[in-house]
Amino acid sequence: MPEIRKHPVTREWVIIAAERAKRPSDFGTHDVSPVKAVKDINCPFCPDNESMIPPPVEVLNNQQSEWQIKAIPNKFPALVLDGDINRKDVGIYDTMNGIGAHEIIIETPDHSKSIPKMNDSEMINVIEMYCKRYNELKKDKRFKNIQIFKNYGKIAGASLAHPHSQIIATPFNPPEEWADIRGIKDYLSYRKKCPFCDVVEHERKANVRIVLENESFIATTPYASRFPFEIWIIPKKHSPVFARINDKEINDFALILRGVIGKLSSCLSDPPFNYAIHTAPSNDEDAYNFHWHLEIIPRLTITAGFELGTGVYINIVAPEKAASFLKESSESGATVVPA
Amino acid sequence: MPEIRKHPVTREWVIIAAERAKRPSDFGTHDVSPVKAVKDINCPFCPDNESMIPPPVEVLNNQQSEWQIKAIPNKFPALVLDGDINRKDVGIYDTMNGIGAHEIIIETPDHSKSIPKMNDSEMINVIEMYCKRYNELKKDKRFKNIQIFKNYGKIAGASLAHPHSQIIATPFNPPEEWADIRGIKDYLSYRKKCPFCDVVEHERKANVRIVLENESFIATTPYASRFPFEIWIIPKKHSPVFARINDKEINDFALILRGVIGKLSSCLSDPPFNYAIHTAPSNDEDAYNFHWHLEIIPRLTITAGFELGTGVYINIVAPEKAASFLKESSESGATVVPA
Repeated sequence: MPEIRKHPVTREWVIIAAERAKRPSDFGTHDVSPVKAVKDINCPFCPDNESMIPPPVEVLNNQQSEWQIKAIPNKFPALVLDGDINRKDVGIYDTMNGIGAHEIIIETPDHSKSIPKMNDSEMINVIEMYCKRYNELKKDKRFKNIQIFKNYGKIAGASLAHPHSQIIATPFNPPEEWADIRGIKDYLSYRKKCPFCDVVEHERKANVRIVLENESFIATTPYASRFPFEIWIIPKKHSPVFARINDKEINDFALILRGVIGKLSSCLSDPPFNYAIHTAPSNDEDAYNFHWHLEIIPRLTITAGFELGTGVYINIVAPEKAASFLKESSESGATVVPA
Repeated sequence: MPEIRKHPVTREWVIIAAERAKRPSDFGTHDVSPVKAVKDINCPFCPDNESMIPPPVEVLNNQQSEWQIKAIPNKFPALVLDGDINRKDVGIYDTMNGIGAHEIIIETPDHSKSIPKMNDSEMINVIEMYCKRYNELKKDKRFKNIQIFKNYGKIAGASLAHPHSQIIATPFNPPEEWADIRGIKDYLSYRKKCPFCDVVEHERKANVRIVLENESFIATTPYASRFPFEIWIIPKKHSPVFARINDKEINDFALILRGVIGKLSSCLSDPPFNYAIHTAPSNDEDAYNFHWHLEIIPRLTITAGFELGTGVYINIVAPEKAASFLKESSESGATVVPA
C-alpha cells in the first residue's frame, strides 16, 4: 500500500507510491553527456574566452597567477544591481523593480571537472567562494535572501556544461524560506526543539536513511522525500547561516557534498540534478532560529499536473530504499552497478 | 529592467525577466507529435482494448450504446481505495496509509481527438464527467480534496497519447489549496472582497491580459504569471465548488476551455501543458469562501535549482505579451504564425 508522510518542518504531505518502485537502473541513462575535453573553444567559461563574459567580481589565483575559481556577474541576469526597488501598487496589484544580484561561480578552469572529479582543495575552493560571495552580497541592505544553487545537466536547467554554480540575491523572502521559518517556529513552540536538530538526532539513531556522515554533517534521504533519491545535507550544529561555517566545517561540508554527488553519479549513471542551500534571511540572520542545510534534487521523474496543481509530490522510490542503494555506491562518481 | 510582481492571492513574488523575451516561435516545436490515427491497437484507452484496463466506474453511451466518455480506476494508482487511514507517529514523524482515489477519464474513443478537435457536445461531456466523478468521490468522507487535472504531452507527464484527464482524491488538504484559502481569508479581512472577484473586475477593466471571455468566465494570463503563457479561467460568479456549475455554465466553461487550449496550440505549435481545477476542500466546501478556477501551465521552460530551492519563479514572457499573442491566435488549434 502507498504511504503518506508528513514533512517534519513544512508539515506538507508527500505520497510515497513505491508500488511503482524502481531500481536505479530503471531510471536509465541521462542527457548529461560525460564531458571529456578539459577545454572547449566555444565555452564562455573556459580559459582564454574571457572576452565572452563580464569581468569577474572575485577570483582565486594559484601561485602562477592562473585562476582557480571565479565569480562573474551573469551576462543575462534575472535581476539587476542598479536602481531603486520602488515598490508600488498597480490597481489591485503590487510590483517592484527587478533589483537583485545574479552571479555565476565558475568552479574550475577545467571544462570536464565535475564535482566527483575535484580534489579536496578544489572542492573546498567552491565552498569558500560560496561563503565569500554570500558575505559580500549581504552587505547590500536591499537584499533579503541570497540563494546559492547549482543546476547540473540540461534537464536540470544548465545551459552550459562547464562546471558552475549560481547565486541570486532577491529583495524579498521566498516562499520556501517562509515555509522553513514557519515550520521551525511552530515546531519550537510545541516540541521546544529545532526540527532540523531533531531530524539529525532521529536519523542517526534510526540509521535507515543516512547516506554519509562525518564529524560536522549528515547526508540523509528525508523521511518525506518529495523526489526519488532526494538528499539533504544537514549540519549537526544548530546554526542559522551557511556562510558562518569555520574552516573545519568547510572541509567537512566540501567532502560530504562531493561524496554524495559522487554516489548519486555512480548509482544513477550521472543524473541531472539541482542543489540549493537553504539559509536564514540575509538581512536578519538571527531572527528566526533557522538551521541552514543543503537540498539535492536529482531530476529523474517529471513533475506533472497533480504536483503543479496541488503542491503535493508523488515519489516512486522510498527514501530508505534510495539510501540503501546510495550507501552501496562509490563516492568516486564512476558508474558501478549496485549489488 | 526586470519586474517583480506579487500574486494577489498567495502573495508570492514572481520575477518577470522579459529582457530574455521570446516570441512564440522561439519556444520551437514540441514532442507532442500530432496523433493522426483515430485508433491505436496498442493503446489501452482505445475501443476493443478494454481487457487491458479495469472496468469503468462511469460511462456515457450514445444511442448505439457505444461509449462516448468513461471514467476508470487508474491501473497503477498513486493512492488506493481500500483500507483505513491509520494515521500514526513514527518517532518524530507522522505517517498515514496511502488511502485515496485515482481515476482516469478517457475523454473520447477517438485516439486522435485532442481538445481543440472536439465538437461542443464532446467538450461538454468532459466537463460533465468531471462534475459527476467529483460528486461521487466527495461522498467518501475520508477525502478532503479532489484534484481534477490533465497532463498533455510527454514533457507534461502524460505517458499515454490517448486524450485523458485524471482525478486524485486525497485524505489531506494540499499546500496549494491552503495557499489559496489563506490568501482569500487575508484579502477578505483587509479589502472586504474575494481576491478572485477583484481580479475578474480589474482584468476586465484593464483589458491587457484577457485572452477570451464569455458570459460566465474570463480567461486571463495572471498578473504574476509564474510560467510563460500561463492562463487562468475564472468564473465571474463567486462560487466555491467547481461541480456546482449549472448547465449554462458547463456550456460556457467547455467552450472557453476548448478555445483557450486551441489558442495555445495554434500560438505555440501544440505545446505540452498541464491544467488543474482549484476548488474548495471537498469535505467542507463552504467553509473558506473559496473561488474555484482552472490554471493552465504550458511546459515551455525548465524549472531549475532557483525555483526548486526558493519556490520563486522566473518568467521570461510578460503576461501582457503572452495575452496579446494568444488573442491573435486561432481557437481551432491549427498552427498559424502569429502576425
